[in-house]
Amino acid sequence: MGAVRHSLAGRAETQLQARLLARLRDDGPLSKAQLADRLQVSRTTIGAEVARLGQLDLAVEAGPAASRGGRRSTLVDLAPDIRFAGISIGATGLSAGVTDGRLTTLLVRHRDCDIRSGPEKVLALALELLREVVAEAGVVRLAGAGIGVPGPVDFDRGVSVSPPIMPGWDGYPVRDAVSRELGCPVVLDNDVNVMAVGEQHAGVARSARDFLYVKIGTGIGCGIVVDGELYRGVDGCAGDIGHIRVDDFGPTCACGNTGCLEAFAGGAAIAREATAAAVAGRSEVLARLLAERGELTAADVGAAVGQGDAVAVQLIRDSGRRVGQVLASLVSFFNPGLIVIGGGVTALGHSLLAEIRGVTYRRSLPLATGSLPIVHSELGPEGGVIGAAKLISAAVYAPDARVG
Amino acid sequence: MGAVRHSLAGRAETQLQARLLARLRDDGPLSKAQLADRLQVSRTTIGAEVARLGQLDLAVEAGPAASRGGRRSTLVDLAPDIRFAGISIGATGLSAGVTDGRLTTLLVRHRDCDIRSGPEKVLALALELLREVVAEAGVVRLAGAGIGVPGPVDFDRGVSVSPPIMPGWDGYPVRDAVSRELGCPVVLDNDVNVMAVGEQHAGVARSARDFLYVKIGTGIGCGIVVDGELYRGVDGCAGDIGHIRVDDFGPTCACGNTGCLEAFAGGAAIAREATAAAVAGRSEVLARLLAERGELTAADVGAAVGQGDAVAVQLIRDSGRRVGQVLASLVSFFNPGLIVIGGGVTALGHSLLAEIRGVTYRRSLPLATGSLPIVHSELGPEGGVIGAAKLISAAVYAPDARVG
Repeated sequence: MGAVRHSLAGRAETQLQARLLARLRDDGPLSKAQLADRLQVSRTTIGAEVARLGQLDLAVEAGPAASRGGRRSTLVDLAPDIRFAGISIGATGLSAGVTDGRLTTLLVRHRDCDIRSGPEKVLALALELLREVVAEAGVVRLAGAGIGVPGPVDFDRGVSVSPPIMPGWDGYPVRDAVSRELGCPVVLDNDVNVMAVGEQHAGVARSARDFLYVKIGTGIGCGIVVDGELYRGVDGCAGDIGHIRVDDFGPTCACGNTGCLEAFAGGAAIAREATAAAVAGRSEVLARLLAERGELTAADVGAAVGQGDAVAVQLIRDSGRRVGQVLASLVSFFNPGLIVIGGGVTALGHSLLAEIRGVTYRRSLPLATGSLPIVHSELGPEGGVIGAAKLISAAVYAPDARVG
Repeated sequence: MGAVRHSLAGRAETQLQARLLARLRDDGPLSKAQLADRLQVSRTTIGAEVARLGQLDLAVEAGPAASRGGRRSTLVDLAPDIRFAGISIGATGLSAGVTDGRLTTLLVRHRDCDIRSGPEKVLALALELLREVVAEAGVVRLAGAGIGVPGPVDFDRGVSVSPPIMPGWDGYPVRDAVSRELGCPVVLDNDVNVMAVGEQHAGVARSARDFLYVKIGTGIGCGIVVDGELYRGVDGCAGDIGHIRVDDFGPTCACGNTGCLEAFAGGAAIAREATAAAVAGRSEVLARLLAERGELTAADVGAAVGQGDAVAVQLIRDSGRRVGQVLASLVSFFNPGLIVIGGGVTALGHSLLAEIRGVTYRRSLPLATGSLPIVHSELGPEGGVIGAAKLISAAVYAPDARVG
């Protein structure tokens, strides 16, 4: 019984530490009295815990708090030199940044890369970029790093699993490899999950408890937040909506099937259709862009829309209609409070969002769309950096959590 | 500060009561030592709480526990005379039953009814049936009642909301009306939610944390369980998959739209198509059944399948294919660990389930279906009674919960 009591006390302490540090991260400096109220423990317990966290260089006393009447309380803050790294890897580019303990970004850098060049090359590039950021921001020590990659992840093991658009990554131990390089704890998640978390922490989803983050980049994926927490599904592949079949026939997808949403509506699909239109002489604007640049991207289609090109407008509308079709089903099923649309293709501007909105609202039950905002991401790629940093902060602040 | 401490203590006590009674409900009689271990509180605290719950007629001491070495502990059980009622209302029939405090059903009765005859009539019938059950089972006092209805519900307010197949029910205060009649607390939920909870408590989903319960009756709906808890969505209409649009055209649905899953694949749709085939002379078997009975139901189509009728087989396969199509999308999105298929149409037998399985597995990502059982409900309508009783038991055991 003694051993059981001891381990229970240890667990309670761990939970208190995690809750206290998460409060300071999300709500800013708080007085000991406020912490006692919010965490429902005594001021004596808070005092002892803050002293212990001070010795661990995680929290500091930051002077007297504003008076609430009665005895003045002491303000507590996160240690000012806590630094987290966030790396968000997409199919064609990556972002690396560092944040303080409260996840305010100190510096973020972006770089082009091709996910298909394999894990060694891409991770070396990501670490090189992160080291530049770390040096430039004067970071002495990283408390941990979070990484997002554009495909399914086994979160517990920290590896990529059967990623359709990531040849060479299947089973690669991303978490452990990066942890070894950086000498700090690392967590690995799906890119849409880290973006959803970032948008929830610092972006347009701040007040949302149940929402979807839909990323339309080269591929299409969805982060799912249930009651404020990421929902990953039993195999960690929840939100893999890019491979929902929207038609019995259609172009072959990177996953090998036909009829996938991604193969109709993702950035790669839009570029492919635009190239076909240019080559076939169906669009002068796209043909000129193709001649100038050698290849077309989804961004070029956006430029053609800006020049009033009818084919480009139709491509965007087709993409938005397919995405809206799938979202309407998900709205009926999941009844979210908010849908955030992010990813590179959203740079195409309002026409895509308008089409997605129109189809989603038209095809869903009125009850589920009565108050359902469908909005653009506020943070863009920086959201991935903040979200990745948040995931590792949760692991670092809760010392029992299993991280690499 | 004194007042705050007091209310915190009150809340902790409430939570302890709810957790303790839920343990006794779900795990059976437990010794005080086991309760202390599982709830992570001291044996002294357990002793005091059990004494308090004894005065409230909720728990009793049930003699000495088996020895675990050392001092012998006392066994604690739920009070033996706790009785809950569960009422599960479908489009064409209802079930009413009573359970003990541990949700073992003492007696369940079924009766045909037509949901379209409106709330006064249907609820009067349900209460009449429940009173018969209560009398026959010798119940002296109901601690509470749970009700499921076949349409969206505002759970907090206890009313039906815009139910497509339930004319006259929109905004009807079901919970308060029934609570007044029975003189006990009542909770109201969607029929698929209560069935999902029942199957989780006593049926095929006992070990599942993340699963879907898909009911194919007159209409089609889905209960969603996330991390062991019902997920209702922000407006309470999550799981309304019957109105996902599976085709741009198609028969008009009860909701007024065209192309809804339910209008293709629900029991009413199967009966409608079978009648058309019988009238057009495309199926001798169905024509004979129609002549004999005056109208055809989905069950008649099942009988025709049993007689090898090709048209009936095709109707079932078409229904299964449409359902599988939608489930494949939901599997990609939600990555559940189990799908339970329930509702009246499942009485059609294995051919429907086989078709649903085939299409769902074929169209989903391999990662998400590697270990995804798709199985029939074990409990049938009794599951709804148990689930409804479980929802009210949670409210009764947690005295602060808001119920009518």
